[in-house]
Amino acid sequence: MTLWGGRFTEKLDPAAWALNSSISFDQRLALQDVDGSSAWAKALEQANVITHEESQAICDGLRAVRDEFEGKTFLYQPSDEDIHTAVERRLGELIGPSAGKLHTGRSRNDQVATDFRLWLLQALPRVDAALRGLQQSLIGRAETDTDLLLPGYTHLQRAQPVLLSHWWLSYFWPLQRDRQRLAQLQERTSVLPLGSSALAGTPFPIDRLALAEVLGFMEISSNSLDAVSDRDFVAEFLFSSALVGTHLSKLAEAVVLFSSAEFGFFELSDAFATGSSLMPQKKNPDVFELARGKAGVLLGYLTGLMATLKGLPSTYDKDLQEDKEPVFNAYDTLKAVLPVLADALRTLAVRPERMRAAIDPGLMATDLADYLVEKGVPFRQAHTLAGRAVQLASQQGQPLDHLSLEDYQSLSPAFSSDVYTVFDPKQSISRRETAGGTGPKAVAVQIQQAKKAVASPA
Amino acid sequence: MTLWGGRFTEKLDPAAWALNSSISFDQRLALQDVDGSSAWAKALEQANVITHEESQAICDGLRAVRDEFEGKTFLYQPSDEDIHTAVERRLGELIGPSAGKLHTGRSRNDQVATDFRLWLLQALPRVDAALRGLQQSLIGRAETDTDLLLPGYTHLQRAQPVLLSHWWLSYFWPLQRDRQRLAQLQERTSVLPLGSSALAGTPFPIDRLALAEVLGFMEISSNSLDAVSDRDFVAEFLFSSALVGTHLSKLAEAVVLFSSAEFGFFELSDAFATGSSLMPQKKNPDVFELARGKAGVLLGYLTGLMATLKGLPSTYDKDLQEDKEPVFNAYDTLKAVLPVLADALRTLAVRPERMRAAIDPGLMATDLADYLVEKGVPFRQAHTLAGRAVQLASQQGQPLDHLSLEDYQSLSPAFSSDVYTVFDPKQSISRRETAGGTGPKAVAVQIQQAKKAVASPA
Amino acid sequence: MTLWGGRFTEKLDPAAWALNSSISFDQRLALQDVDGSSAWAKALEQANVITHEESQAICDGLRAVRDEFEGKTFLYQPSDEDIHTAVERRLGELIGPSAGKLHTGRSRNDQVATDFRLWLLQALPRVDAALRGLQQSLIGRAETDTDLLLPGYTHLQRAQPVLLSHWWLSYFWPLQRDRQRLAQLQERTSVLPLGSSALAGTPFPIDRLALAEVLGFMEISSNSLDAVSDRDFVAEFLFSSALVGTHLSKLAEAVVLFSSAEFGFFELSDAFATGSSLMPQKKNPDVFELARGKAGVLLGYLTGLMATLKGLPSTYDKDLQEDKEPVFNAYDTLKAVLPVLADALRTLAVRPERMRAAIDPGLMATDLADYLVEKGVPFRQAHTLAGRAVQLASQQGQPLDHLSLEDYQSLSPAFSSDVYTVFDPKQSISRRETAGGTGPKAVAVQIQQAKKAVASPA
Amino acid sequence: MTLWGGRFTEKLDPAAWALNSSISFDQRLALQDVDGSSAWAKALEQANVITHEESQAICDGLRAVRDEFEGKTFLYQPSDEDIHTAVERRLGELIGPSAGKLHTGRSRNDQVATDFRLWLLQALPRVDAALRGLQQSLIGRAETDTDLLLPGYTHLQRAQPVLLSHWWLSYFWPLQRDRQRLAQLQERTSVLPLGSSALAGTPFPIDRLALAEVLGFMEISSNSLDAVSDRDFVAEFLFSSALVGTHLSKLAEAVVLFSSAEFGFFELSDAFATGSSLMPQKKNPDVFELARGKAGVLLGYLTGLMATLKGLPSTYDKDLQEDKEPVFNAYDTLKAVLPVLADALRTLAVRPERMRAAIDPGLMATDLADYLVEKGVPFRQAHTLAGRAVQLASQQGQPLDHLSLEDYQSLSPAFSSDVYTVFDPKQSISRRETAGGTGPKAVAVQIQQAKKAVASPA
Repeated sequence: MTLWGGRFTEKLDPAAWALNSSISFDQRLALQDVDGSSAWAKALEQANVITHEESQAICDGLRAVRDEFEGKTFLYQPSDEDIHTAVERRLGELIGPSAGKLHTGRSRNDQVATDFRLWLLQALPRVDAALRGLQQSLIGRAETDTDLLLPGYTHLQRAQPVLLSHWWLSYFWPLQRDRQRLAQLQERTSVLPLGSSALAGTPFPIDRLALAEVLGFMEISSNSLDAVSDRDFVAEFLFSSALVGTHLSKLAEAVVLFSSAEFGFFELSDAFATGSSLMPQKKNPDVFELARGKAGVLLGYLTGLMATLKGLPSTYDKDLQEDKEPVFNAYDTLKAVLPVLADALRTLAVRPERMRAAIDPGLMATDLADYLVEKGVPFRQAHTLAGRAVQLASQQGQPLDHLSLEDYQSLSPAFSSDVYTVFDPKQSISRRETAGGTGPKAVAVQIQQAKKAVASPA
Repeated sequence: MTLWGGRFTEKLDPAAWALNSSISFDQRLALQDVDGSSAWAKALEQANVITHEESQAICDGLRAVRDEFEGKTFLYQPSDEDIHTAVERRLGELIGPSAGKLHTGRSRNDQVATDFRLWLLQALPRVDAALRGLQQSLIGRAETDTDLLLPGYTHLQRAQPVLLSHWWLSYFWPLQRDRQRLAQLQERTSVLPLGSSALAGTPFPIDRLALAEVLGFMEISSNSLDAVSDRDFVAEFLFSSALVGTHLSKLAEAVVLFSSAEFGFFELSDAFATGSSLMPQKKNPDVFELARGKAGVLLGYLTGLMATLKGLPSTYDKDLQEDKEPVFNAYDTLKAVLPVLADALRTLAVRPERMRAAIDPGLMATDLADYLVEKGVPFRQAHTLAGRAVQLASQQGQPLDHLSLEDYQSLSPAFSSDVYTVFDPKQSISRRETAGGTGPKAVAVQIQQAKKAVASPA
Repeated sequence: MTLWGGRFTEKLDPAAWALNSSISFDQRLALQDVDGSSAWAKALEQANVITHEESQAICDGLRAVRDEFEGKTFLYQPSDEDIHTAVERRLGELIGPSAGKLHTGRSRNDQVATDFRLWLLQALPRVDAALRGLQQSLIGRAETDTDLLLPGYTHLQRAQPVLLSHWWLSYFWPLQRDRQRLAQLQERTSVLPLGSSALAGTPFPIDRLALAEVLGFMEISSNSLDAVSDRDFVAEFLFSSALVGTHLSKLAEAVVLFSSAEFGFFELSDAFATGSSLMPQKKNPDVFELARGKAGVLLGYLTGLMATLKGLPSTYDKDLQEDKEPVFNAYDTLKAVLPVLADALRTLAVRPERMRAAIDPGLMATDLADYLVEKGVPFRQAHTLAGRAVQLASQQGQPLDHLSLEDYQSLSPAFSSDVYTVFDPKQSISRRETAGGTGPKAVAVQIQQAKKAVASPA
Repeated sequence: MTLWGGRFTEKLDPAAWALNSSISFDQRLALQDVDGSSAWAKALEQANVITHEESQAICDGLRAVRDEFEGKTFLYQPSDEDIHTAVERRLGELIGPSAGKLHTGRSRNDQVATDFRLWLLQALPRVDAALRGLQQSLIGRAETDTDLLLPGYTHLQRAQPVLLSHWWLSYFWPLQRDRQRLAQLQERTSVLPLGSSALAGTPFPIDRLALAEVLGFMEISSNSLDAVSDRDFVAEFLFSSALVGTHLSKLAEAVVLFSSAEFGFFELSDAFATGSSLMPQKKNPDVFELARGKAGVLLGYLTGLMATLKGLPSTYDKDLQEDKEPVFNAYDTLKAVLPVLADALRTLAVRPERMRAAIDPGLMATDLADYLVEKGVPFRQAHTLAGRAVQLASQQGQPLDHLSLEDYQSLSPAFSSDVYTVFDPKQSISRRETAGGTGPKAVAVQIQQAKKAVASPA
């Protein structure tokens, strides 16, 4: 049984059937399809298209179908072209010909758009929860790893000392923006296409606002032609996922770096590291590498979908069938990666002495320039003088804080003996108490902001 | 002059300079750079880092620099590595050494992030206006082309009759979603990074909230490490642009189709069509083809930027310099394409008779099935019967409304002589008055919704 | 059992295991893994690392494992992290501790690279065969549909008449280029990484050239660090697939257009078209729409993989595990789509009268200009005059060949009564016998070229 | 003047003109356009379409136009829609009406495809030269940095010692594959479209093979419809560029890592590093970061073009105008980046002692396992035992070579006092003399192979 054979004199070629069929992946919409169909049956009843008894029978039958899906006892047939066909076929087996009234006034075009939006409306909060899980892990680290200093890097060169708490939180805020984007997407997804029928609107007097309310949608679509082809919510989810992926790739790159022997700032727990089939000493940060690699994969899903959408006119074209797999894959990827990263961070060991040792006096060169600024030297000149000091120290083969006072004074008379105080990294950090800075008080405020952010809807 | 030569003993290699320099494209941030610098000078004064006189001198000098940019009299020097260097260099020429105090406590890292956000905050409303321009053109068509019928298509096969007004508006709503996305991006862009310095926060007691207010930002960034590397707003703009591009490609594909001789529904104005260097008769819809093609280009900008971001750890890496050109290009593309499409739509001629002639009786096959539904036949069976009627008509080589009543009744006794009324396309349309449907009243409501939407901020 | 637990004190976290494990997709490399291992065992024997008896036992055991894979009786264990682990685990069960000698001197890094290349070496000829299948279908059409005329289009506007045979073959040559690219990729894939060990080369005196010969590789890799990380062959396969996808999308777009009611040039066989769940009259070209849509999906695989590769240093990083799924998916996509398109083309009906009717006299406007050229008018002027004729005919509301001779002569005295001969489309076509042109003789030559091309290796 | 105004009654809208015009970028094809036109004029003469005098006049005129382009004295006019129009317009100014005979029998469709291929045929050898420049730089390093050891890494964890020469060459071979791909593209680009006219083939008896020979093409296109729309060579160039970009990103990532304070293996020359506007001590590897970032940008060009191509039917659509900018940009990017990287590598300083110090005894754990293998222990067991030794050393807080013999023997009686010899990294390296391995002799062979490869055409 297909839902469309009437005018055809020949059956679909088996290889064409295999290509065309979507049941292998759209069965994931089974519950949403049943729920959407139940609501539709009731709406048909309210519109006096079917009787109360018919509606009742359909809804009872659909409940039985739903139980089969939930109990994993539903048996798919080879003829089930897609989930809609499977549900209607099974409904017919259970309740007989009145099942044939269910599809009145609707089409698979508005049906699948509705199912898919319903699915995403349920999936988004789960992604949000997974993002919050990682955020909490980062806050936990920020609260635990207080008072630890490490070099901040730009261009992967040591730049200035920062607090490790501050560093952890630099990965928190991107996820907060992700949550905000997904929350806005939740609203944009919550627009009901059902009632648009194939493209022109349903001819039966369906109360679409009531239908939306039953199904938990906030709004109804305004234009039937647009409603059946609008896949903005898909593109937006894939973009948001890819941007989450990019954020995770940043964190992953940093953890991979800091777990190297050369940095040596972090050591992963054995429970979140793997070994080599050849080299017995290896302890590899595979889960972070995978997180980084999957940023590419997620970007591929986005690109693929948008290229598929490009150049289609409005209303439904079959190309749109390619919308589901990337969404399911992106969702599964995020759900697999986020909790693992959260736990891997929670359990990693930090090595304060390695981090502290990496703060060589050169990282206070900006403080040295600022010292001159406070003595009245314009910053641009102060910067040059501090640069010369760096050069001089390098020529002498010694650290910046080992230059003699004479050397300093040879560069500028503004230097005096208090110059050596600038080389204390704690002082450097404590000077940065502006909002968002790495000073301990600013970071304490930031931790409170982060806790508040993670506790609320984005 | 560079802003960083102090510690170096050798000048940058000329080819490396050419690769590294960004002045060729970041000069587009000139006004934003000046404005950000003025605000910074005042903030330094308020923080007692520089005197009132110094601040005054700097701001006066910057005003003169700004005038040069606006008057296009600013002379770039080969040594101007980037716009920040150019501005500071020129300021020094105008006001002398106190120019060297401007860069105190900030870095090009927070400066460029601020400039770029400022630029986008000013650009987004212009994109919104261009989108509204096209929306208004679509509303105008919907109001003008009332009462005209054409086939609606799915799979590029004639499906059901729809009103041309409804069809035009199906391209309106995607743009409305675009405007909403851009409005949300506007808020997310309105977060001030200035005061984050290179990565660790500025060591001077800058009032960042006051600074944000002066520059028109709604919020300040929460974490300095994140603030200097956050390019989410860039990715999001490129995504939104690419999605606009996809929407325009849909419209373009449809107009190209409808302007073909075979469809013949539209004829472009000579002012928006071009010819062939070889074939004298050709009249080509180039501007729509370009709009469609540029959807690909815009997707490329998005992909490129996200691939560039992938795998960078947090804080500033030079790779981020690749963020500007795609944004400028995407903006220019939208600004070039949108008004042309708006005017091309405004001036195109529609051919009602061609559209009407394309509505063959087969398009009312769904109405035929619905007719049976109203006679009590379950829809699934009604669908099959209508399909058989289509098949029969096809075998007889005549349109669906030319089947004899006997033929109809041979398929089902539910058919009676009133069956022929279903073949009036106007009736088919007038049956679709559910919200969002193609019925004339529903479309009238939709036009009002569209006018309200375009008149308000998204 | 993992292949690497020795130095670890804690087991891998279950969620991390699930993320890290690749058995769900790399089991597709089972036979290649066994074959590579057998060859390695023999190479170890030849290098006197293991005895003849050990090698024999290993090879016998591997043969049994291979039989299990082929007979689908192989039982995976939850501890099988990847296909390499599964094979070695099973081998141990079958032959005991001497299985532990197999992995001597190699690593999963060179092993998986070898397996994957072996797989692709076997897959590429199958893709080539599928491409040839579609090419043959196109040649078949070109031979069948001889003497049929249709309009050629540029910008989707009717341009000049062409032979349908010529049109079909315009989709043949892109596939020929695809075949050539894949054949060159075959050679580039045929480079053996085995013997590179984890990264530094194997410490045992393996004869890699002999090993290559046994496994059917043409060359051995030159640098072990490169060999374990080189995924160029993956990127190149995904690019070639995406370009095939683009070519299919062109064909698909054209068939979708030509199958529309408005063009009406083609009618798909019922065996390769589908219907609507709502609209009984619909006959949709789904398989072509899917082919077009999958061009986007294939592009996504390419983009994703390349973004994953970007920014990794050389040698093996775990991110590379993301290389397999896109390749398997791309391969499956091509194998599913190509034969269906081939059969759908073979079985579609063409409508000569619809195509012929679409050749209005305007399509001979270039011939009209060429007529003037032959009378000595420079082409640029002839083009303008023919354009004026088009304009004049349009103003008179009649076709170009209905303009009176006076009208023509009012435009230019070069026109005389023989002008009307240019409006015969057959003549227009027969004038284009230059190589590659649409003239019947040129097309006959082209058919022979195509037959020769498809019969030979690309 | 446009080349197509005849049939139009209204001029193109100025904004539409701006969108449609391509002169801003296709002027880069000026010389190719002139050369193609000269060849065409001669071909028209040979086909007796124009006289020898006309051909002579046209060619003389074109030579003058060419001189203007080369001398940068050519004056573009606002009406120059594209380079073809500009050339024909100027030719007309120089030689009068006979210029109007040049465009006989051709179209801008085959003309631009010819120009663009000609351009690429000239550009590809320059890209090859730039690739060879970087290859030579790598060979130079490999020859200079002989006998230096550093850790090889997998998963960014120290794995096994390798020779620095070997490491440098691991970046050589990917470029060799790039060169091979580009050489094959050169052949595929060398197919002449000229003579295909707009789409149907030229009606004049042009000898296309002779024309190809004059212009330096190896073949002529086989199908005119395909020839005017085939942009495979564009896609393939952009793919090859993006893959070059990926290879450069690998090298760049590695150099950035090794130039960090933590690795400290490399120090960039001051001539190839830049500083910070804020932090006086910074020395940043900007050129390598840009190379890495541009890998993303190059991928964007590829994606954009392929998305643009997707869904177009065959023959020319205006969307194809988007093909040029990405190619020019990709070419400029490669030409800017490759020489800078070559020189930056040539001039960087390596720090042998830092590299040597990073080879801790743990890197010989595989050798330790191999030691047991040689004592008859199966590798799998040997791997486990070596892993236990690593664990034991870690628990004792000492390096692997400081475990006592008793400790070793407690793990396995196969250990005896000669075990400590395995910890010599030079010995570890010298054991890897299989082809492609890191042993000194194998690397010496590899250097010879590389020199031979770079000296020959790819």
